[in-house]
Amino acid sequence: MEQYPDSIRRLIRNLAKLPGVGEKTAERLAIHILRRPVAEARDLAESITTVKEKVRLCTRCFGLSDGALCRYCQDSGRNERLLCVVEQPADMIAIEKSGAFNGLYHILGGALAPMEGVGPDDLRLNELLARVRNREVDEIILATGTGVEGETTAGYIARQLADTGVRLSRIASGVPVGGDLKYVDKNTLKCALDGRHAL
Amino acid sequence: MEQYPDSIRRLIRNLAKLPGVGEKTAERLAIHILRRPVAEARDLAESITTVKEKVRLCTRCFGLSDGALCRYCQDSGRNERLLCVVEQPADMIAIEKSGAFNGLYHILGGALAPMEGVGPDDLRLNELLARVRNREVDEIILATGTGVEGETTAGYIARQLADTGVRLSRIASGVPVGGDLKYVDKNTLKCALDGRHAL
Ligand SMILES: [Zn+2]
Ligand SMILES: [Zn+2]
Repeated sequence: MEQYPDSIRRLIRNLAKLPGVGEKTAERLAIHILRRPVAEARDLAESITTVKEKVRLCTRCFGLSDGALCRYCQDSGRNERLLCVVEQPADMIAIEKSGAFNGLYHILGGALAPMEGVGPDDLRLNELLARVRNREVDEIILATGTGVEGETTAGYIARQLADTGVRLSRIASGVPVGGDLKYVDKNTLKCALDGRHAL
Repeated sequence: MEQYPDSIRRLIRNLAKLPGVGEKTAERLAIHILRRPVAEARDLAESITTVKEKVRLCTRCFGLSDGALCRYCQDSGRNERLLCVVEQPADMIAIEKSGAFNGLYHILGGALAPMEGVGPDDLRLNELLARVRNREVDEIILATGTGVEGETTAGYIARQLADTGVRLSRIASGVPVGGDLKYVDKNTLKCALDGRHAL
C-alpha cells in the first residue's frame, strides 16, 4: 500500500471500509477509478454526497425519499386507503419488488423488543394511529417480521387499532417463521400477501 | 431498483460500474453508505475526486505521483544511479512490494507491439536515453515482461544503449515465461531480481 502516492492510499483506505471489500479489492477499485474519465469519477463522488444530502424519511410513511413525500405517497395510481405496516425501509423495498401490493406503507422503524429496551414509544405507532384516526385508511396489512418481535408488534398494533373500525390483516405464513422479510423471494412474498388472514 | 428514490438509484448505478460489482452488491454498498455518518461518506467522495485531480505521472520516472516528482525520485535513501525499466506503473508497484530493489524506476508506458501499432515513439524511450546520456545512471535492469513484446522491448533498449557504457541487465527468469509482472508473487520477483544476468 505504501507504494502508492498519498491520494491513492487514502482512496484505497476509504474503499476498504465498504462491506465485503478487502484491501486487495480496494486497490483494484482505486486503480480502476484512476483510469476512468474524470466525469465518471466525479459522478460517482457526487452521487455519494448527494445520497447523504438528499435522502430523508417520507413525512407520511417514513420510507426512504428524496423529498418530503416519497414516490409512493405521491402516486395517485395507488390505493391510498390500504396500508402495509413494515418494520424497516428494506422490508418495503422487498414488498415493492414482489409487485403484489398497490397500497401505501407505514414504516415503524423497528419492532417491539422489551429485552433490548425498544418500547412502543420508540416506534412510529402514534403516527400510525394518527393516520387511522384521521380516516385516511380503510385497511391495514400488518407485515412485520414473523419472529417473536414481529409477532409481538403485530399483536400490539392489532390491540391498539381494535376499536377504530379499520380492517386489519396479518401477512400470511409463507414467509418462513423467524425469517427476515428482505431476504424472502418475490413469490413467497406474493403468496404471503395474497393469503393474509383477518385478525 | 426502481423502488428506491432517484438519488439512491443513481448511486447504485454508479457503484455497479465498478469492476466485480453487480447490481445486488451495488445496492448493498449504497445502503451501507446511506447508513454511515455524513463525514465518512464525504471523505470517500472527496478521495475519489482528489485521486483524479492529484495523481499524475512523475516527471522523471513516469510513475504515479501526487506531485512533480514521485516519492522514490525524491527519496535520498535510494540508489539513484540504478534504474529499473518497467512497462507500467503497476509493475513498479509489484517490484516495490517485493522489497528487493532500492534504485529508481523508468516506466515506459507499454511494450513494443508492431502488430498493434505500438512503436518506439509510443514509449518513453527518448526520455530513458536522455537519463542515460545525462550521466544520471550507472546501471539499468530491464524488467519488461517476459512475453514476446517485453523481450522485444528489452532487446531493443539493449541495442539502443549498447554504446553508452551503462551496465545493462535483464530481470532473471523466475518470472514465468509469458507472465504479467503484477500478478507474480513477491518471492519470485525477489529471485528474478537477484538472478539477473548481464546482457
Ligand atoms: Zn411515503
Ligand atoms: Zn519518479
